[in-house]
Amino acid sequence: MKEFKVIEIKQSIYESNDIEAEKLRNKLKESNTFLLNLMSSPGSGKTTTLLRTIEQLKDEMRIGIMEADIDSDVDAKTIADAGVKTIQLHTGGMCHLDAKMTSDGLDNLGVDDLDFAVLENVGNLVCPAEFDTGATKSAMILSVPEGDDKPLKYPLMFKVVDVLLINKIDTLEVFDFDMDAVCKRARKLNPDIKIIPISARTGQGIEVWTDWLRTQVMKVKE
Amino acid sequence: MKEFKVIEIKQSIYESNDIEAEKLRNKLKESNTFLLNLMSSPGSGKTTTLLRTIEQLKDEMRIGIMEADIDSDVDAKTIADAGVKTIQLHTGGMCHLDAKMTSDGLDNLGVDDLDFAVLENVGNLVCPAEFDTGATKSAMILSVPEGDDKPLKYPLMFKVVDVLLINKIDTLEVFDFDMDAVCKRARKLNPDIKIIPISARTGQGIEVWTDWLRTQVMKVKE
Repeated sequence: MKEFKVIEIKQSIYESNDIEAEKLRNKLKESNTFLLNLMSSPGSGKTTTLLRTIEQLKDEMRIGIMEADIDSDVDAKTIADAGVKTIQLHTGGMCHLDAKMTSDGLDNLGVDDLDFAVLENVGNLVCPAEFDTGATKSAMILSVPEGDDKPLKYPLMFKVVDVLLINKIDTLEVFDFDMDAVCKRARKLNPDIKIIPISARTGQGIEVWTDWLRTQVMKVKE
Repeated sequence: MKEFKVIEIKQSIYESNDIEAEKLRNKLKESNTFLLNLMSSPGSGKTTTLLRTIEQLKDEMRIGIMEADIDSDVDAKTIADAGVKTIQLHTGGMCHLDAKMTSDGLDNLGVDDLDFAVLENVGNLVCPAEFDTGATKSAMILSVPEGDDKPLKYPLMFKVVDVLLINKIDTLEVFDFDMDAVCKRARKLNPDIKIIPISARTGQGIEVWTDWLRTQVMKVKE
């Protein structure tokens, strides 16, 4: 009976979250801001990828980053040093961000003067996939050392994102990672997924990623 | 108000979970079975570490493995092939295991003929740390590619475990990973934590780990 209760509550959270998410998406449209929700496992390179992205795009558009973390502000410090508007969101132990938390974060960040905002979600392949944050688009990073079986084990994440960045491709020789297999597995779950292999460390593939972002930022302004 | 409700429910879940966990720990003591809760991020090498562990210990003790996954049974197949009793637990989207789920799993696995049982938890550094599964001891794996800043970002996990395995040390040259820094950060959170650097791929350090496990299995029988 206890378990039944939990499930009931989860459903009602999901429903009201979906309403909040739609509200936020409409608000973003009005302010012509493109919001990206960036998700991954811990340590797959979200912050390093953002640094590369900022480097490529900061002269063309106004960028703002929200760093979500359970604790600490190491990433926010790194990102702020890159010269863009940055805030740190502490989730207080929560394993994901929902639309309300994202919306509160954006109120603090301020979107009126931004073309492109990013929510760097908590490092977690499970819970963040379950909550629509209200972002315009979502992307995930899978890094080569994590292995090519991840779409089989965390299918929801691969289903809900628009883009899959495969990071750390400069280490492909060190790990037993089948690129074709991972692409096939991801596309089986999500036929429209855009897959971009990158190395945030060397810069390889980053232009394909920033081209996609540029297009999205322009679309929001149409 | 909605958020307040959620917190209330979480607290009641935690309380009843702690009672369930104590019950399970007592039951394990009675059956002289040592249960290890093994946690980590996705892709840090839980299954490969278990394979190495089984290889070293299976002639000395009776081992049983519970593979928890949101979906799929790839890991259970791999472990079953190693010649030990294995069951797959599907969490149905849940991001962690609690004491009741662990206890149900053990009923299915059967502990009366086991010296050493392992719960391979869902790949997640956040939620599994919040729930006492009732296991005798807990261990986590941090892999070198994930980075040395993880204790700063996921502190609870490092606080609650007895052992930290640092895996993939055969790739230390490829990554910018400061072993001293990570040990210092982990010990600041958890002064009693036992830290064992390993490579599940090459076998390096595995004996230190299996020595610790052997001692634990013997302690339970005392």
